[in-house]
Amino acid sequence: MSIVLAGGAGFIGCKLVAHFLGLGQHVLVLDNLCRGKQEYIQDLQPQAHVHFVNIDLANTEKTLQTIRDFHAKYPVQAVWHMAANSDIPAGIADANVDLNDTFMTTFSLLQAMKALGLKNLAFASSSAVYGDHGPTCKLHENIGPLLPISNYGAMKLASEALISAAAESWLQGAWLFRFPNVVGVPATHGVILDFIRKLRATPGELQVLGNGTQQKAYLHVEDLVEAMLFIVAHAKEKVNVFNIGPEDAGCTVAQIASETVAKVQPSAAIRYGEEPRGWVGDVPKFLYSVEKLAALGWKPRHSSLETVRRAVAEIAGQEAD
Amino acid sequence: MSIVLAGGAGFIGCKLVAHFLGLGQHVLVLDNLCRGKQEYIQDLQPQAHVHFVNIDLANTEKTLQTIRDFHAKYPVQAVWHMAANSDIPAGIADANVDLNDTFMTTFSLLQAMKALGLKNLAFASSSAVYGDHGPTCKLHENIGPLLPISNYGAMKLASEALISAAAESWLQGAWLFRFPNVVGVPATHGVILDFIRKLRATPGELQVLGNGTQQKAYLHVEDLVEAMLFIVAHAKEKVNVFNIGPEDAGCTVAQIASETVAKVQPSAAIRYGEEPRGWVGDVPKFLYSVEKLAALGWKPRHSSLETVRRAVAEIAGQEAD
Repeated sequence: MSIVLAGGAGFIGCKLVAHFLGLGQHVLVLDNLCRGKQEYIQDLQPQAHVHFVNIDLANTEKTLQTIRDFHAKYPVQAVWHMAANSDIPAGIADANVDLNDTFMTTFSLLQAMKALGLKNLAFASSSAVYGDHGPTCKLHENIGPLLPISNYGAMKLASEALISAAAESWLQGAWLFRFPNVVGVPATHGVILDFIRKLRATPGELQVLGNGTQQKAYLHVEDLVEAMLFIVAHAKEKVNVFNIGPEDAGCTVAQIASETVAKVQPSAAIRYGEEPRGWVGDVPKFLYSVEKLAALGWKPRHSSLETVRRAVAEIAGQEAD
Repeated sequence: MSIVLAGGAGFIGCKLVAHFLGLGQHVLVLDNLCRGKQEYIQDLQPQAHVHFVNIDLANTEKTLQTIRDFHAKYPVQAVWHMAANSDIPAGIADANVDLNDTFMTTFSLLQAMKALGLKNLAFASSSAVYGDHGPTCKLHENIGPLLPISNYGAMKLASEALISAAAESWLQGAWLFRFPNVVGVPATHGVILDFIRKLRATPGELQVLGNGTQQKAYLHVEDLVEAMLFIVAHAKEKVNVFNIGPEDAGCTVAQIASETVAKVQPSAAIRYGEEPRGWVGDVPKFLYSVEKLAALGWKPRHSSLETVRRAVAEIAGQEAD
């Protein structure tokens, strides 16, 4: 049996590739290498089980053809779709970015799966589908309306919707993971990496976008992978929607800034902007419910702050190499 | 001032064109005439204020160019987007149908509006965004998760999401109307029209898809237009999401069949299928909440059954012509 891993050369995808290789499976890694890197998967063993194709998944024809060829040799058990644009401001500046990389990737994969009779799909959705419900509303899976404030969030919600419709007519199992902020290595983007790179460029000070009060839930990539695999193993509805995250209310950008400065450049001054948001499309503060996941039986072992501390050390190590 | 009316040659769109002409406005009617017909707008007065363009709105470049030319002569005040594929089974059979006609139409219109600085958008969404929450769950605007069961519903939700994201960065006002089943003339599709045409083809009997217990809320197109205009006039959030419908729980397919037979072919026998659904993607029974709209100040004056009775008479007249 084998797995198709869209976005498999990315930060999260490469961890899943390693997991499935460990189970003895062949893995078809589909990635446009926009953020992902081949080096993230080139040392994984057995390398003969890693089948990498550099592909634009918005290309429906080519996606079908590539999966068809692989499926003929290694019958595909499930598709894991972790591919997306991860640069939210870029997607707001040009809606085509999230249309192609975040939504059409889903459309193409579904078209290919339908044509080939592949019936199980695990999908990386996002807390961004909720939009801004204010700092006191707990975001659990059964609230609405869903009014995303970025094209990234919009195209994640659009993808969920299309997967849900497919489950009504031909898809047998769908697992929609609504991710929090995920940190760890290999870091390709995100606030910690940005801070570390800024501190290397300007060691004396760290300029922070926004006033530092933005608060978010952080999960380590290894905990995230564990949670996803747990959900697929235990959630048996046709369409399974789960928030994944830590149990706390998150930590602030100011806390991340101070952890990063303490680790990387203790003498640097931290300077904040005045806006409560870092950029358009950034939800300033929200409470994320992971009660549904806890009821299923999985709980995170680390707080947001512990996770951030671990990731700062890991990413500082990555950037020092 | 003027209005852009996407889908303006359709069943609902043409009523809005008439309304805006009555206010003295010029109207740019954009329609691919897939379901709409030019005859629906050719007698509207003053005809010199009706600017019709046959266009595939999935074509982003052409959409921008067409609206730009019109806007240069008649400054556009608002865009009303009523264009969509309305054949739900066709969209399930081929996902490209709803991708192009229901979603990419929204994408293109938003791209054009952003480029031209047009900041007000009224959008025909649908109760189909909710998916199937069972017969006892009241579908109000703040429930979730939204798991549509047709590509039509999925691409309506995707459109809502994209509009919501645009409102965060450049759109000033968005009105998202979640339509019930809408009936009246000129009928282009729907269960009443299907029944009347079947009865003309086979006068002795009416074969109904499904077991007749499917129950839905019906609103007359004239009430719908009144409700939409009321919402735009009174709802002043940046993004305004409103269910529109009657206050009752709807009427059944069996009731519609018997009303239609009584009017058109009283001697015909009605035969039912066995399935609780008429087709894949059809939500069998749901309770639709219109309390938010009532709180805003608009209430429908007719029940679903009264509306169906009126529409049966109107559509029978249309088909007799």
